[in-house]
Amino acid sequence: MCATRQYPRPHDFLRQHAEAAGQGPVDLPDVSGLVVGVLGGTGDQGRGLAYRLARAGQKVIIGSRAADRAQTAADELGLGVEGADNAECARRSDIVIIAVPWEGHAKTLEALREDLAGKLVVDCVNPLGFDKQGAYALQVEEGSAAQQAAALLPDSRVTAAFHHLSAVLLQDESIDEIDTDVMVLGESRADTDLVQALAARIPGMRGVFAGRLRNAHQVESLVANLISTNRRYKAHAGLRVTDV
Amino acid sequence: MCATRQYPRPHDFLRQHAEAAGQGPVDLPDVSGLVVGVLGGTGDQGRGLAYRLARAGQKVIIGSRAADRAQTAADELGLGVEGADNAECARRSDIVIIAVPWEGHAKTLEALREDLAGKLVVDCVNPLGFDKQGAYALQVEEGSAAQQAAALLPDSRVTAAFHHLSAVLLQDESIDEIDTDVMVLGESRADTDLVQALAARIPGMRGVFAGRLRNAHQVESLVANLISTNRRYKAHAGLRVTDV
Repeated sequence: MCATRQYPRPHDFLRQHAEAAGQGPVDLPDVSGLVVGVLGGTGDQGRGLAYRLARAGQKVIIGSRAADRAQTAADELGLGVEGADNAECARRSDIVIIAVPWEGHAKTLEALREDLAGKLVVDCVNPLGFDKQGAYALQVEEGSAAQQAAALLPDSRVTAAFHHLSAVLLQDESIDEIDTDVMVLGESRADTDLVQALAARIPGMRGVFAGRLRNAHQVESLVANLISTNRRYKAHAGLRVTDV
Repeated sequence: MCATRQYPRPHDFLRQHAEAAGQGPVDLPDVSGLVVGVLGGTGDQGRGLAYRLARAGQKVIIGSRAADRAQTAADELGLGVEGADNAECARRSDIVIIAVPWEGHAKTLEALREDLAGKLVVDCVNPLGFDKQGAYALQVEEGSAAQQAAALLPDSRVTAAFHHLSAVLLQDESIDEIDTDVMVLGESRADTDLVQALAARIPGMRGVFAGRLRNAHQVESLVANLISTNRRYKAHAGLRVTDV
């Protein structure tokens, strides 16, 4: 027999597990009214996330260095998505997803320290290098992109999530469900619950708590392995966490 | 709608994907006649793997520093499992799984360099530290446990796999299927195919190629995240790779 598994909706599975563990029901917070900014929203990953969240009914603002490029990307997506320069995008959003290229990560965040103060920041950047053998993990002085964000943004609540998503699948309008779990990392339960709830807005997707930021490096770097898997199997690999 | 996914058997899914990609059928090699040694087979992870492989019909030899301890563990498992000291276990096996504690990893392998010459070595060691906040990834000078093994065993074929398995589930005799994929890393397609075929011997389990050894660190370290997930959800989390 091969393994067959049905993935319940996040709320159901969290409640089930919490009840089994004698903790009583767990409800993820309602994030449907929050504004989500996507810095780097003109790139493939950011644009894909913006599309999926907007399609799920979330208010989304795409941020870019140039406001007109952000506006163009927003107009292409429709669904009520707006475009703005990075600073305005940060200021107007409750939750800000960082989807900029690794090369611009530190510089972008340093410049936005005040605009991101008090915000829930979700870093989804994967510091990778590429050569003819494929992708490999880069060493990051702070340990990971997420830890670098936390160091540069002392007045923000920094989490990490959305690393293992295929930009191709995210942007494919013919696909209704994104068949993957999202590992969510952070220091505060309240913050990781919000990010899990945001992930759960996208059909097929679950947010699963996967540790503190000190363990973000391997989650970010694992994208190098998924790239190898994709090459071997001509796939768009994602991950499901079993038994939760 | 929640996502429902049925996982085909490895041979089927590999063939399907290879055919879809125009590569023709792919058959994983037949490993049923190979002897599998498990160094560190008296520990929870090693014992669990030894049990599952023997239960699947594989000839298994448990290795330990002390032959009598290996023999005791083997007798407890039954299923034709034998026990031997590490050197004899290595010499008599075709495939040797390294499941020793990280603390003894380098020293154990150094001493077995000749016994492991020519063997297919499968490193499943996770270099982790623990403190009151849980588990975290250790820095390894060679990059990862698997790369350390490759450096110490120049005459062996070193791969990495079986990192994300729950020793509790592996050892639970009431469980028939292990609901997880096994990320398999290595430099040679022939070797990783053999390890994938070995993983596929265990019902419910698939071996999925996930890159070269230079990308082993994050696969080993991800166990720290699964430990955090397990604590939060009172679970024995594993991973499935989607879209392959």
